[in-house]
Amino acid sequence: MADVNSYLSGYADGEGCFCVSFSKSQRHNLGREARPSFSVSQNSDRMEILELFKKQFGCGYIRPDRSDKTFKYEIRSIQHLIKKVIPHFEAYPLLSSKKADFKKFAEICRMISRKEHLKSRGFNKIVDLAFEMNVSGKRKYSKSEMKI
Amino acid sequence: MADVNSYLSGYADGEGCFCVSFSKSQRHNLGREARPSFSVSQNSDRMEILELFKKQFGCGYIRPDRSDKTFKYEIRSIQHLIKKVIPHFEAYPLLSSKKADFKKFAEICRMISRKEHLKSRGFNKIVDLAFEMNVSGKRKYSKSEMKI
Repeated sequence: MADVNSYLSGYADGEGCFCVSFSKSQRHNLGREARPSFSVSQNSDRMEILELFKKQFGCGYIRPDRSDKTFKYEIRSIQHLIKKVIPHFEAYPLLSSKKADFKKFAEICRMISRKEHLKSRGFNKIVDLAFEMNVSGKRKYSKSEMKI
Repeated sequence: MADVNSYLSGYADGEGCFCVSFSKSQRHNLGREARPSFSVSQNSDRMEILELFKKQFGCGYIRPDRSDKTFKYEIRSIQHLIKKVIPHFEAYPLLSSKKADFKKFAEICRMISRKEHLKSRGFNKIVDLAFEMNVSGKRKYSKSEMKI
């Protein structure tokens, strides 16, 4: 019998993403926003694995991905990331080099939950950490555009 | 601590493939060959997960995939499929609909290990089962071209 928690960590090692995206935002004092998310994508014919993540984590939502014909399970709530996602991957750690991305992701989420992102020093540190993650991914803004 | 076996099943659920390919072969009495394989692909920057599969299964090999810039861990030996791969996924089952592909794959491998593929009735049954698997994948030969 497979251990479901270990199984989900293995699945996420292949198909999951720990991401921190940035946007310009007039609602935020610094004019910038950092948005961490954990997501897993899958074709619609195998949605059940996304349902399993949702059930096991007890949070997040599943939605169609506009960019292709897949569905995405996603958690954006900082509270859920801190209380559900991060403890899961600390208890059932990734076994590939994606673990390094996860560690930076966890640090960023904890900084945000401590409100450190609201000051320029903390925000800049988040930018530095985030730009060390998923280096092959595309970003709308460059690092220097996001630094304060 | 993640259970490695469950983790690998989860990883394979996302990134693994149970495949049965066919080719024409003058070396075989029926003029056709059925070749089952289990494989997992990964970018070279995260090769360690392929090494982990190889270590855990104690068989198979890792090679560059000609079609793109990935590496592939692959097991083609029918003995290793029967003794290592199939028992693993029976003990730590897939949790998505890929499980149905695995069951057909296991049946095909066992038929081959019992030499049933050497007679036309058995070979035709293997063709039927294989064409129910991975229906989105491309095949060189049609089902009718492989039937005897």
